[in-house]
Amino acid sequence: MFKIIKKSKKSKARLGKLKTKHGLIETPFFMPIATRGSVKALTTDDLTKLNSQIILGNTYHLYLKPGLSVIKKFKGLHKFVNWSKPILTDSGGFQVFSLNHNGMVKVKENGVTFKSVYDGSKHLFTPTRVIRMQETFNSDIMMVLDECVKNPCSKDTAASAVLKSVKWASKCKKVKKKNKQLLFCIVQGSLYKDLRIKCAQDLSKIGFDGYAIGGLAVGETVKDMLSVLDYTIPELPEDKPHYLMGVGYPKQIIEAVKRGVDMFDCVIPTREARHGRLYFGNLKNNSTININNAKFKNALSAINSKSNILELREYTKGYLRHLFSVKEPLALRLATLNNIEFYLNLMKEIRLAIKNNKL
Amino acid sequence: MFKIIKKSKKSKARLGKLKTKHGLIETPFFMPIATRGSVKALTTDDLTKLNSQIILGNTYHLYLKPGLSVIKKFKGLHKFVNWSKPILTDSGGFQVFSLNHNGMVKVKENGVTFKSVYDGSKHLFTPTRVIRMQETFNSDIMMVLDECVKNPCSKDTAASAVLKSVKWASKCKKVKKKNKQLLFCIVQGSLYKDLRIKCAQDLSKIGFDGYAIGGLAVGETVKDMLSVLDYTIPELPEDKPHYLMGVGYPKQIIEAVKRGVDMFDCVIPTREARHGRLYFGNLKNNSTININNAKFKNALSAINSKSNILELREYTKGYLRHLFSVKEPLALRLATLNNIEFYLNLMKEIRLAIKNNKL
Repeated sequence: MFKIIKKSKKSKARLGKLKTKHGLIETPFFMPIATRGSVKALTTDDLTKLNSQIILGNTYHLYLKPGLSVIKKFKGLHKFVNWSKPILTDSGGFQVFSLNHNGMVKVKENGVTFKSVYDGSKHLFTPTRVIRMQETFNSDIMMVLDECVKNPCSKDTAASAVLKSVKWASKCKKVKKKNKQLLFCIVQGSLYKDLRIKCAQDLSKIGFDGYAIGGLAVGETVKDMLSVLDYTIPELPEDKPHYLMGVGYPKQIIEAVKRGVDMFDCVIPTREARHGRLYFGNLKNNSTININNAKFKNALSAINSKSNILELREYTKGYLRHLFSVKEPLALRLATLNNIEFYLNLMKEIRLAIKNNKL
Repeated sequence: MFKIIKKSKKSKARLGKLKTKHGLIETPFFMPIATRGSVKALTTDDLTKLNSQIILGNTYHLYLKPGLSVIKKFKGLHKFVNWSKPILTDSGGFQVFSLNHNGMVKVKENGVTFKSVYDGSKHLFTPTRVIRMQETFNSDIMMVLDECVKNPCSKDTAASAVLKSVKWASKCKKVKKKNKQLLFCIVQGSLYKDLRIKCAQDLSKIGFDGYAIGGLAVGETVKDMLSVLDYTIPELPEDKPHYLMGVGYPKQIIEAVKRGVDMFDCVIPTREARHGRLYFGNLKNNSTININNAKFKNALSAINSKSNILELREYTKGYLRHLFSVKEPLALRLATLNNIEFYLNLMKEIRLAIKNNKL
């Protein structure tokens, strides 16, 4: 399923190909986030033009709305969201825990109960159930159910979450139907080296199609995050893809790739687009601007004259600033197109740099 | 500037061509509304694909934001909004009066003072100023400043508004620079036949490039509105375009065309898109659906399988309903594309029907 094409001579970075039901993906890659089945303000035709290889859907949200019965009618997520390339669905674990306001979430031995953000109705996610859901979605890559903890957290809390996460991961593998959907596990353990290593080893023994590192980018410093990668990744099977969940800024992605990470997802390009922060540049030299800054009021220059996207070449920064200032919905579309293009181009340059031993 | 190509044998409908600085427009036509320089959630590339011949910008809003100095830097609206076909700008009169909350607006002999909706700052619109603004915009069709009244209103109020509107219109014509921008006047007079006729005659004597009928679709019945058209249009020069402002539903547009109206603008297609009301069908047989209706939950059918727009053929009604239900911004884009396409197709069919003496 995963083939390493080339290892960099400069770092632990790898160039590879990941085979899924809906096609091959070149690694390292970035997944634009379609939480509720739509990358904010973009069409799937836009994503094709942006050369997105894969998108990420959210089990928690799609389970609540539109609900499994609708996705079943559409014979899976692909037809529902009109996307024929690969889709990864997370297990919903992260959302369940991160939306834990006022004790709405209860962790039990066999899973986790929570109340819907939409109507307060009660739900139970178990390892078996999240696999069945993702089988209904027919996603190319499924994620196991895990228990997420915030950083910092006590060692006892982290240890208990690791135990449960490994047990649930094992159960997920057991109940998974034999089909071409890939199943990835998730390494937890907060910032405790021994816990991370133990978790990575235990999961490696069980054996999965890919290995995610979770519980990062949740409050710790970048230095701590990279340190976790330094001691965790060597414990994972080298011949399987490594996925750093929820990360991150361009520099963090580059540093993670150097440590052997192959896959990324992050809300940054879409969320920052919403606030008018735009990414420009390339692997070596990149920066952001806040388009709301007064200095762009009369800016006649294109949003991005080098873009492959017609709109970004044709519309000016001055006009985009105006759209933000009067809250026109087109603002979000243009800014998101810009930022997703930046992230996907960055990954392309990273792949080229690995090929040429430049990274 | 305006040439009638063909008069229907069935009604007073006319087929024509209106020449503007930025190109010829086939009449009768509909103008999508770009109040703040953007048709809600669409790019100008979308509008080109939808075969929009012209768009409408709003002087009041564009004067306040981004402001005249910015538009000046862009050498006019066309470059600012990235649209090379014709643009009509209204005078802002309607907005000044319709946004008259808490006595924010004061009508004087020479113009109207009002407070900005954005920051409460005080502004004065005079006939001369609105012409200068629209000259800065370099719009293809400029509108005179008029005083708008709500229906119903007393005859005294209506008469006073007519007097002022004619006086201001005359002033607008006088101060207009000699260039290729067209200047249209606006007939007022509420539902008073003698006032409407007097206003139409007075404006016709002054002489304009086109004649709008204002102060309709502001609270009166459709029957009353059509009745105003019945007695007003015969008083206007036949060889000039007739523009019914702010109208309307498909049936109203068809009835107005039969009475000799050549131009329309209306927020209906964009505003109703926002609420999930979609227009379908053709000149003879059209209807709307509310996509939020539960019956569309599992709808596998395309939003519009006959559309020229890829997204409308590819995305399903079930998915669009989901996007509305979770408030995804893509919902607005798809619904607006659908409704603008319906309105522009309707106008195309109307032109064909006139050509064939079917309307």
